[in-house]
Amino acid sequence: MKKEEKIIGIGGGVGPEAGIGLHKKIIEQTDSGGTDQGHIEVYHLSRSHDIADRTEFLLKHVDNNPAEGMFNTAQALTSVADETEKELVLGIPCNTFHAPEIFNHFLGLLKKNNLNIQVVNMLEETVQFIKDFFPGVKKLGLMSTTGTRKVKIYNKIFEPLGLEIIEVPDEMQEELHDTIYNQKWGIKAVSPVSKKARDNFLKFSGVLNNQDAEAIILGCTEIPLALPEQKFENRPLIDPVLILARALIREAAESKLRSLII
Amino acid sequence: MKKEEKIIGIGGGVGPEAGIGLHKKIIEQTDSGGTDQGHIEVYHLSRSHDIADRTEFLLKHVDNNPAEGMFNTAQALTSVADETEKELVLGIPCNTFHAPEIFNHFLGLLKKNNLNIQVVNMLEETVQFIKDFFPGVKKLGLMSTTGTRKVKIYNKIFEPLGLEIIEVPDEMQEELHDTIYNQKWGIKAVSPVSKKARDNFLKFSGVLNNQDAEAIILGCTEIPLALPEQKFENRPLIDPVLILARALIREAAESKLRSLII
Repeated sequence: MKKEEKIIGIGGGVGPEAGIGLHKKIIEQTDSGGTDQGHIEVYHLSRSHDIADRTEFLLKHVDNNPAEGMFNTAQALTSVADETEKELVLGIPCNTFHAPEIFNHFLGLLKKNNLNIQVVNMLEETVQFIKDFFPGVKKLGLMSTTGTRKVKIYNKIFEPLGLEIIEVPDEMQEELHDTIYNQKWGIKAVSPVSKKARDNFLKFSGVLNNQDAEAIILGCTEIPLALPEQKFENRPLIDPVLILARALIREAAESKLRSLII
Repeated sequence: MKKEEKIIGIGGGVGPEAGIGLHKKIIEQTDSGGTDQGHIEVYHLSRSHDIADRTEFLLKHVDNNPAEGMFNTAQALTSVADETEKELVLGIPCNTFHAPEIFNHFLGLLKKNNLNIQVVNMLEETVQFIKDFFPGVKKLGLMSTTGTRKVKIYNKIFEPLGLEIIEVPDEMQEELHDTIYNQKWGIKAVSPVSKKARDNFLKFSGVLNNQDAEAIILGCTEIPLALPEQKFENRPLIDPVLILARALIREAAESKLRSLII
């Protein structure tokens, strides 16, 4: 019996561009047989006004946990999926959202409200990806928001597995964060990405290389917009959103997952 | 009193990449004030397996009117929007879907089922755009699927308004259609776009220029993926999906519409 295909849900709006990046990667990584009709169903809700900024929450500048707004999105996705009687597998294209303070609260809300949907954890998938494809890599450069950095989301997941996390020097982190968030020229504000934002991320990658990073994690979903290439000076650039896209296809319709070319 | 912002609905899956193109253009054309939270809500459902190929239907190769599947999508979008008590404005990023045989049947289904949603007509918006921004242009080159061409969707809308439609010679149309649909190297099958597809669309644009087209309409939503530039040899390339994105923002939250730079 052919296993029923699942619907892929995108918990978008975190930020809106990252949702589109994930959606696009899902299409690109799907072997549809060349027809529109061969693609997997994707339900993508972008309700950013309802979801507090993840970094602001982790730094305790706002009280509102972004998990609450994302729960509303999950509930809406479930209600549409229920009408089709198909199962839904959900991905959330935001690194900072995967901080335990947010992600675990989100899973708790789903459980408390009996919302029975499968959620793919982007960061756990990223660890598995590195172990599978780059088993020799032990020192990982990480570029991320100040929120992700301060609460050590990556360190907590990666270091117990023997993977070292290297970041740009403290005095450079503000500039890195600003390159994502600056309301005039940052990645979140200007689309397509500004030259200044791209140049900054090339600079940060160079700094991590000089610290002997063996691979570099683009640890905020907006960074691949500024660094779309697969490698920087021969070190792999690891894009957790691409890994999430592939994991969602694997869970929804594994036979449609394209081969990975590295 | 501040007018309540509407939700933008994307009737996606026609094809899936075109839905992403529209979604991306909505984000790019929105003045969000530089924050995630300032973006308009976008609900994007891509249910391509449920929506028959538009060209196949117009050429009478299949009986199933794509309007039926899109009606299911509209119904699902409405049910999610209803829970938020906001109004929804819907756009469908497919030229061929706007053929009267499909589009009018779709509007009829909405009416018959009392589905009270606003639908923006991409082609009517395109006519208005040309009249507003290029009032001197009278001869328009058109590149489209064989379905759009055969049922003369653009001719029926543009010619009564004194705008002439020029297309590639009959013997070249099959190659043009194939460049969209070819399951090995066509735009729908290969993402990012193949070199062959891009080269072909440059060739077709040259042919239209030689026939004295004053502007060229990218009359299938996939074509802007192969020709992302704004001009070809100094003639404007007109992208109905960009025009649709701007019209949807105007209807949902006019104050957030960015200035247009031509």
